Order: sequence, then C-alpha cells, then structure tokens
Amino acid sequence: MHKGRLEAFSDGVLAIIITIMVLEMKVPHSSDLGALQAILPIFGGYVLSFIYVGIYWNNHHHLFQAVKHVNGAVLWANLHLLFWLSLLPFASGWMGENHFAKWPVAVYGLILIMAGAAYYILVRVLLAGHGPESTLAKAIGSDRKGTISLVIYAVGIALAFVHPIIAFAIYSIVAVIWLIPDRRIEKHLAS
Amino acid sequence: MHKGRLEAFSDGVLAIIITIMVLEMKVPHSSDLGALQAILPIFGGYVLSFIYVGIYWNNHHHLFQAVKHVNGAVLWANLHLLFWLSLLPFASGWMGENHFAKWPVAVYGLILIMAGAAYYILVRVLLAGHGPESTLAKAIGSDRKGTISLVIYAVGIALAFVHPIIAFAIYSIVAVIWLIPDRRIEKHLAS
Amino acid sequence: MHKGRLEAFSDGVLAIIITIMVLEMKVPHSSDLGALQAILPIFGGYVLSFIYVGIYWNNHHHLFQAVKHVNGAVLWANLHLLFWLSLLPFASGWMGENHFAKWPVAVYGLILIMAGAAYYILVRVLLAGHGPESTLAKAIGSDRKGTISLVIYAVGIALAFVHPIIAFAIYSIVAVIWLIPDRRIEKHLAS
Amino acid sequence: MHKGRLEAFSDGVLAIIITIMVLEMKVPHSSDLGALQAILPIFGGYVLSFIYVGIYWNNHHHLFQAVKHVNGAVLWANLHLLFWLSLLPFASGWMGENHFAKWPVAVYGLILIMAGAAYYILVRVLLAGHGPESTLAKAIGSDRKGTISLVIYAVGIALAFVHPIIAFAIYSIVAVIWLIPDRRIEKHLAS
Repeated sequence: MHKGRLEAFSDGVLAIIITIMVLEMKVPHSSDLGALQAILPIFGGYVLSFIYVGIYWNNHHHLFQAVKHVNGAVLWANLHLLFWLSLLPFASGWMGENHFAKWPVAVYGLILIMAGAAYYILVRVLLAGHGPESTLAKAIGSDRKGTISLVIYAVGIALAFVHPIIAFAIYSIVAVIWLIPDRRIEKHLAS
Repeated sequence: MHKGRLEAFSDGVLAIIITIMVLEMKVPHSSDLGALQAILPIFGGYVLSFIYVGIYWNNHHHLFQAVKHVNGAVLWANLHLLFWLSLLPFASGWMGENHFAKWPVAVYGLILIMAGAAYYILVRVLLAGHGPESTLAKAIGSDRKGTISLVIYAVGIALAFVHPIIAFAIYSIVAVIWLIPDRRIEKHLAS
Repeated sequence: MHKGRLEAFSDGVLAIIITIMVLEMKVPHSSDLGALQAILPIFGGYVLSFIYVGIYWNNHHHLFQAVKHVNGAVLWANLHLLFWLSLLPFASGWMGENHFAKWPVAVYGLILIMAGAAYYILVRVLLAGHGPESTLAKAIGSDRKGTISLVIYAVGIALAFVHPIIAFAIYSIVAVIWLIPDRRIEKHLAS
Repeated sequence: MHKGRLEAFSDGVLAIIITIMVLEMKVPHSSDLGALQAILPIFGGYVLSFIYVGIYWNNHHHLFQAVKHVNGAVLWANLHLLFWLSLLPFASGWMGENHFAKWPVAVYGLILIMAGAAYYILVRVLLAGHGPESTLAKAIGSDRKGTISLVIYAVGIALAFVHPIIAFAIYSIVAVIWLIPDRRIEKHLAS
C-alpha cells in the first residue's frame, strides 16, 4: 500500500484544523482596540495551538520520509492521532473563552497528552512493520523527546490546579523544545 | 482518465467532513467540568461519526488501490457517496444536541444506510468498467459485509423507536465490524 | 509551469465549498420531524448547489486532462472561477433561509451566470495558449452547451420575478443538462 | 527533503483560508435587496482578501517552481507565512462588520505587513539554502516589489487614522501591482 494518500489525507486534516481554529476568534461587533484586547486570550491559545499543529505536521512529514510502506494498522493509528488533534480547536477555544481557567487549561493539556501518546503509538506501529534494522528504526532511535514531553504535560496538568498560567507556560516550553526540528531523521536519511 | 484527481478530491472532502464535525461541539461559556458533561452526547456522536468517516476513507483507499481507470459514471457515483457522507456532521450534531432522541437517531441511521447504498453503487459502477476477471472483481468478492451492514442499519432505525440508545449501540457494532480492515483487497493485491 | 498545483488547489477549494455549504443547515434545537421540515428549503438549495459544484469539478477535471501547460493568466482565470463558486454557499443559504423568495433566487441565478462566464473565460484563456490545432481545441469544439446555459440562466433570473419556483426549476434543468458528462473531451483524448 | 508535501499543505491551508472567509458574510434573515446592501462592506473586504490570498498562492507557486530542496527552517518560515495569512479572514470580517472603521482597517494593514515580511523571510531562508548562483537567486533578483509593498502598507496604516477609505484604497493599489504575475521567475525558468 502506498503512503501517498495517507500523507495527503493527513495534510488535508491538519490544514483544516490549523485554519478553522481561527474561527474560534469571533469577529467583535465593536471597532475599538478594546475589542481586540478582549479576544487576546483566545488569540494566545490560537498561537500555541497553531504552533502545536505545525510541530505535528513537521514531525509527521519527517517521520513519513523514512516510511517505506503502510498497512491497515498504520492507517488507524494515524486516524487516532488526527482524532486527538481535531479536538485542539475546541480545547483551545474553551481555554481562551474562559481566560485560562483551570479546567479548560487542564483539558487542553489532556488533549496534548493524548495526541502525544497517539503519535507514540503511530511510531510503534510503523516500527513493527519495518523492523529494527530499518532506516526508520535508526532514524527514530530512542525517541526520548516524545516520552519526556508526556511527563511534562502531566506535570503541567497537575499545576493547572495551582495556577493555570503555570500550566500554559509549561505547554509552551514543550512546544519550544519541539520547534527544534527532528534532525535525527534528517541526518539518517542524508547518510 | 486518471484516478489521481478523484482520490485527491475525495480525500479533501472527507478530510473536511471529519474536521468540521468538531465545530458542532460549541465552546461552552462556563469553565467548569459540568459544561463538558453537557456536551458529552455531542462528543459521543462525534466519536462515532469520526470512526465512520475513517472507515469510509480506509475502504475508499483500499478500493481504489485495485482500480485501474475511472469514467464519468464513476465520478458521479463517487460524488453521490460524498453527498451522503457530507450530511453526517448535520445528523451527528442533531443527534447530540437532542441527547439521542428517537427521530435524530433514526435519521442518523438513514444517512448511514444511504451512504452504505452509495458505496455499494460505486463498487458496482467500478466493477462494470473492470470486468469479472479483474483484480478489482476478485478483491471485492461477494461483498457480504456491505449488504449485511445495510440490513443491520435498517434494524437499528426500527429499534430507534423502541429506544434510541439501542439504535446507537447497533450503529456502533457495525462500525466495529468495519474497523477490521478489508483484508480481502490487501490479500489479492499482494498475491 | 505545471498544471498539478493548479489542479490540487482547485480541488481543495471545490472540496471545501461543497462541504461548508452543509454548515448553512443549522442543527435544529427541537428533535421532532417538524424541525427537519422547516429546513427542507435549505436542504433543497444544498442539493442543487452540491450538484453544481460537482458539475464544475467534473468539467474542470475533464478540461484539464487536455491541458498541456498553464501560465499566469490561466491561474487568474481559474481563481476568478473559484471566486464565483465560493459565493454559492452564501447564495444557497440565503435562498433556503428565505424559502425561495424572489431576490435570493435571482441572486443565486446571477452567481450561476457569473460562474458560467468565468468558466467560459477560463476556456478561452486556455485555448489562447494551446492554439486551434491542439487536442484541447478539438476536444472543446464549439462549446455550445456553455453558451446556451448562460442564456437559460438569464431567462431563469427574469422569471424569478414572476415566480421564484419557476427560476429554481430552470436552474435545475441546466444542472440536468450538465450531469451528462462532457463526452467530447473524453472522446478526443481516447482517439 | 521533498518540497511536494510542503506545497500540498500550503495549498490546503490557502484553499481553506480563501473559502472560509466567505463564512464571515452571514446569510441575512431578510430577503430584500436592502439586506444585501447591508453586507456590501463585508463583501468588499472579502473581494480584496480573496485577491490577496490569490496573489500569495500565485507567488508561492512561482517561487517554489525554482526551489530545489527544503529543510526544517523552510518548513517553519512557510508556516509563519501561513499563520499571518490565516488571520486575514478575521481581520477582513472585523473590517467589514464595522464598515471600515479606522482601527479594523489599520489592523488589516498590519496583517498585510506581517504577511509581506513573512514572505520576505521565507525567500531569504530559501536563498540561504540555494546559494547566490542558483536559478532561484537569479529568478528572485532584487525583490524590489516586496520591499516597496511593505513601505506602502505602512503608509496606508498611518493614513487609516486620517480616513480609513484612503488606507483601503492604498491596500487595493498594492494588490493591483501584484496582480501582474511574477514574470521574473517565469522568464528565468524558461531560459
């Protein structure tokens, strides 16, 4: 089975997720600057979510460069990842609408954990089909960054109940860690 | 005529259907957990609809792997399928919004039947253009799963008027049956 | 310049237009069948608009099969066509929301005329770049169907002020005419 | 790394941006022509934004024709551009909803500046990876049009506080300048 259509479908879903999030920022009826200020929290959530979807797209892109073939299990592991990412616009909007209240911020973190876990599962399913000697296996290596992220998200969720802004800051730090592109795969593909 | 653009267009429509369904989950204005609980039925409908669109995408993907050429009739049979699937977000939202009342659940089942029938027609139109000795014909075989699904949907719709949750459970069972990927085609392509 | 990206972008826009139109059918808050009846006019408009976008996608698909190369003028002629088609969801929603009142029905017809004219322009721009001896020129021939459609739309708009349903019937008849796929191009590509 | 998926993802995002903008034109509840007149300012904003997204798609298309390879930095520079363009529907809706009041018009100009700057950065990042002797470098040349546009946008923003319509006219003039396709790249690719 070719990976082309899986990539195209994923690109489509991610492109739509990243774009419909902006619809959560409702156009204000007033025309003064104060109207913009009122939606600033929603904008903040939008920026972080945009970056996260961008990170997933980048990593997905890198990952599938090393993939040789896909099967039914990969299709579903991929859809599972897209499912959790599709909830980001909702979680992001809820968080912004309520000015970073504790429950919305915690739920946002939960979506990040689930998406991170889904990505982890996708990688395992792909590895199972490629073997430990494949370019893919070498390129992924120990995938420590993925595991650490899950732990940090969990810490963030717990701290949301101390103060939600701490949680938001922690989610942002994980994003910064991932903004550094996955050079492991690039390196192995080049060599 | 090449099948590439038909696949790309279908991927696009399915990607959008699967993603805009999440817009039916309106962001609650309250920030407590109770607000989430109130949209739980909509979330339940979203999960089932997501899985159904995923199933159709998977089957579409498998089906067209064995397709050699398409014509005008195939394009329209495909659009007909996409038409019924495009109504899923509406039916799903109506069902969730009304906490699985009988009419919305019955209409949801009707959409599933129509989509199932449209898929059946698409397969027939493709077979007519490929002949009984084609890889496609061998890969599809008797297509018993498709026919049985239509019968189960009909039973589900009838039972929606006894209790809607029974109908919802029945639709979910059909989804589980289909979650098992269509190995027939994969097998024939490999051999 | 390759035509691939122009096709992909057009597929994307058409896929989104065809899918977001369904968002005009607002989920009713009541769960009885009467609620469905109330949105029946919107559904009627949706069906016709879906078919029209399907027709344009089909014809676009056929047309570009015979296209060898594109330039800046083609890109803009294509965007011009997409612009008018992007207004279909709005016109369709307005028409349904107001139960086929005269002005919305007339404006819907105007969008159809503009889209038809934009398609005509696109064909001319493509022909200018391919010459009268090209496969494209032979495949298109006299394009009588396109010109006649424009005239019928205009008649429909005028009759919208007699009775809007007559206009809607006329638009539907043009759709039926176009549902017959453009065999001219298929024939010339095959020969 | 191949540029194909970056192009496909960008096409997807731009196709969605250009199409969801039309959702800002809310379907009026009244059926007379006056209802259309009331949304005329929103329509005006829609037309300008549609043209701008079209220009960016065209230039992106031309630019990547000359691109040989992409890396992680290019992916992010491209996402950065898409981020600012994704804010166009919001800015466009705000401007139209408030009948071209000064602040919305100024913010619209700011989005145009940021998108212009993001495009400039994208070009620089691409040039850094291709070298001064590449087809890309020759095709882009001095890129005076891009720099001048940024200056004109800034003038437009300042004049929005004198009279917003002047600013809107200035933004429209820049659009007209860009409607002339980037023949430099076409020329260099042909030679």
